[in-house]
Amino acid sequence: MAERLVIIGGDATGMSAASQARRLRNRDELEIVVFERGHFASYSACGIPYWVGGAVADRDQLIARTPAEHRARDIELRLRTEVIEIDIDRARVHARDLESGERNWLGYDRLVIATGARPIRPDLPGIDAPGVYGVQTLDDGAELIDGLGQAAGKQAVVIGAGYIGVEMAEALIQHGFEVTVINRGVEPMSTLDPDMGALIRTAMHDMGVRIVGGAEVTEIGTDSTGRARSVITTDAEYPADIVVLGIGVLPETRLARDAGLPLGEYGGLLTDTAMRVRGHADIWAGGDCVEVLDLVSGMYRHIPLGTHANKHGQVIGANIGGGYATFPGVVGTAVSKVCELEVARTGLREKDARAAGLQFVTVTIESTSRAGYYPDPAPMTVKMLAERLTGRLLGVQIVGREGAGKRVDIAAVALTAGMTVEQMTNLDLGYAPPFSPVWDPVLVAARKAVGAVRKRG
Amino acid sequence: MAERLVIIGGDATGMSAASQARRLRNRDELEIVVFERGHFASYSACGIPYWVGGAVADRDQLIARTPAEHRARDIELRLRTEVIEIDIDRARVHARDLESGERNWLGYDRLVIATGARPIRPDLPGIDAPGVYGVQTLDDGAELIDGLGQAAGKQAVVIGAGYIGVEMAEALIQHGFEVTVINRGVEPMSTLDPDMGALIRTAMHDMGVRIVGGAEVTEIGTDSTGRARSVITTDAEYPADIVVLGIGVLPETRLARDAGLPLGEYGGLLTDTAMRVRGHADIWAGGDCVEVLDLVSGMYRHIPLGTHANKHGQVIGANIGGGYATFPGVVGTAVSKVCELEVARTGLREKDARAAGLQFVTVTIESTSRAGYYPDPAPMTVKMLAERLTGRLLGVQIVGREGAGKRVDIAAVALTAGMTVEQMTNLDLGYAPPFSPVWDPVLVAARKAVGAVRKRG
Repeated sequence: MAERLVIIGGDATGMSAASQARRLRNRDELEIVVFERGHFASYSACGIPYWVGGAVADRDQLIARTPAEHRARDIELRLRTEVIEIDIDRARVHARDLESGERNWLGYDRLVIATGARPIRPDLPGIDAPGVYGVQTLDDGAELIDGLGQAAGKQAVVIGAGYIGVEMAEALIQHGFEVTVINRGVEPMSTLDPDMGALIRTAMHDMGVRIVGGAEVTEIGTDSTGRARSVITTDAEYPADIVVLGIGVLPETRLARDAGLPLGEYGGLLTDTAMRVRGHADIWAGGDCVEVLDLVSGMYRHIPLGTHANKHGQVIGANIGGGYATFPGVVGTAVSKVCELEVARTGLREKDARAAGLQFVTVTIESTSRAGYYPDPAPMTVKMLAERLTGRLLGVQIVGREGAGKRVDIAAVALTAGMTVEQMTNLDLGYAPPFSPVWDPVLVAARKAVGAVRKRG
Repeated sequence: MAERLVIIGGDATGMSAASQARRLRNRDELEIVVFERGHFASYSACGIPYWVGGAVADRDQLIARTPAEHRARDIELRLRTEVIEIDIDRARVHARDLESGERNWLGYDRLVIATGARPIRPDLPGIDAPGVYGVQTLDDGAELIDGLGQAAGKQAVVIGAGYIGVEMAEALIQHGFEVTVINRGVEPMSTLDPDMGALIRTAMHDMGVRIVGGAEVTEIGTDSTGRARSVITTDAEYPADIVVLGIGVLPETRLARDAGLPLGEYGGLLTDTAMRVRGHADIWAGGDCVEVLDLVSGMYRHIPLGTHANKHGQVIGANIGGGYATFPGVVGTAVSKVCELEVARTGLREKDARAAGLQFVTVTIESTSRAGYYPDPAPMTVKMLAERLTGRLLGVQIVGREGAGKRVDIAAVALTAGMTVEQMTNLDLGYAPPFSPVWDPVLVAARKAVGAVRKRG
């Protein structure tokens, strides 16, 4: 008789795990059942801002594989069905059909928890009012797109200035909105150090976005119908026909917590390198609901990103399918585009390095993405952190124009390999005038970092 | 009394060495004399095709630092002065002023040989005829630009389809020429494997360049005035108002050979890691006249590239200045742009791997530079070589559109770190829809390579 694999969550991790397991084991060996509480599975949440902004014309373009395609591969996908309890002792899950309300228990031989993340919704008056939108799921995106058409005016407030916040600001500008971004931090993009965030604030200002930094939202103001009409901070009130929440997310681990599974500092599930939940031989977890090892600091972090979620799914599916794969950890790479601005980071920020007990030097350099004499050499700022004494690379942040963002990959690989900045100065990087100055900006930063390490000792 | 540093060659390596040495030692400690036989110093030879093509408007943009700027830093730069002999026993060089014909001996305490490369000019009838142009120096570039204006018609033949050849083909098209590229190899860009070269042939064909592969040039046909009018192969004759030589270069080491300095398999000088000529404590060499250690194959190669030349100069100057720096070697990275096509390589081609006694697997994948749903996902082909059994990465070749070329840096760093393709599948690369699919094309190739290594064993 076939074993049964139950997967909770039908997005990147869950469906990748299902697909990979099915590739290795046929339906006579393994039955696969996926519970997904939304209307969609296998979609790119990262693409939602581009769909809202209009760059992606059609929602269906964000769906990598339809439910019919999964079902054709003998993956039983139950949409609009929420798992409400995991019973570890009896190896079963309790599922509720969100349409009919019907509840059923289903036993599993192997379980994958891929419940993702939930957007932070601060407990503020008015936060649930109509006109306040999240952008976490395709359902959220569809509601927001409807809301844009129905808005009484053209004023939008985005709460939060992380990746999602700034991407949504750009999307709203493309719909002709006047956009105000309200942020708790002084500078946007707190995934970068504030000195680099300041460059993003300037660029967003130049593209017509009002950025209010260092502000604490206290209330969503509503009109007599109960609809959101403004965002109120301790200092001011900002009129809003649309309010978008881009505050960030937390691991969605309520089920796991109730089941007594091990959670980390950020509330994410803790797994081993094979993505098995610690202490549970038959339960795997991956994607936005787990914490991952940061290979640079040696500490666990919560990094909700589609690329990790896909890798986790791949690893889980391979292991369940009888293969072998591991996910050793991350170095914290992320890249983002805000209009023409490319923003990237990898490794540790100054505050991460301090929190990890590391002493370090920092350098910042200005360069260009192409040879200075080649047409349109796009400016680029590169900040680099290196450990004191050893010179080990700790992190890189890049803000620039075309050609800046993906240069962070050079540093991501160097971090993975544990290179020193001294070693990096000799990296044999691609050079030709349309692609780089004769010293790539990353090499210029590494050379300056070498000097700083020597000077500081 | 100050020591005297004599440098032969005033381009990337020579002037970088001079500048770096001067930074560390002042004129009371070190006198610096540079001999350069051309009219210019410190220029970007790599920029010449873009100057000829018109993308770079002005020759002076290619000059990083003027003679006056060097002289202001107490670097004595003697232009149009050729060193004709190195007398190692008496530690002196014999120099000839190319204008006056005057000859002088000058002693040195330390010597840097930075004589660069010389273009291959096959010994063919008509090769020295007017209308036949090299593109190695700024002087060459100026002559060619003059020649373009004077050409009797609009037919151009480029001999050779390496980087310079294809870049020159593009430059000539921008001047309205009909361009034929004649190449000895069947496919252009022999720095890539032929299967990848074929993609470039197709793209060049689509941009209107005629490519004649597998052809042996036997003669440059001339008219009654002795001017080049055609290029003749064993099979055909191609009319030409302009002939451009893009065949490649050899190390310019006549002086070194005559002085009995050690040369390698390709005729380049052999140095240690500090860029000192082997067996000579006070003689350094770098740039296009040396051979470099290929860290992947463990063999020496001749790789004329501005980025290495600059690094060599930096290392030499630091060591002469009393600091410490090394150049451990290269992994063979190169990137190039042909109209909208980006072409990149690093590590070993199939034939390099075979020549190094390595057994390997190869995989080739198609992907895009952006998420498939994002506007204009540019297609990209990635070929990857991995060692049999160990799975160690051996090489990567990429042909694609915008965003393809610099992805080779990921592989360049992985090669430097000696990573396996298995390790590469977990690289934490920058992901966002405008920059990459959720699996970066390099990761897709690495995953496929893992499968090939496992299958082959």
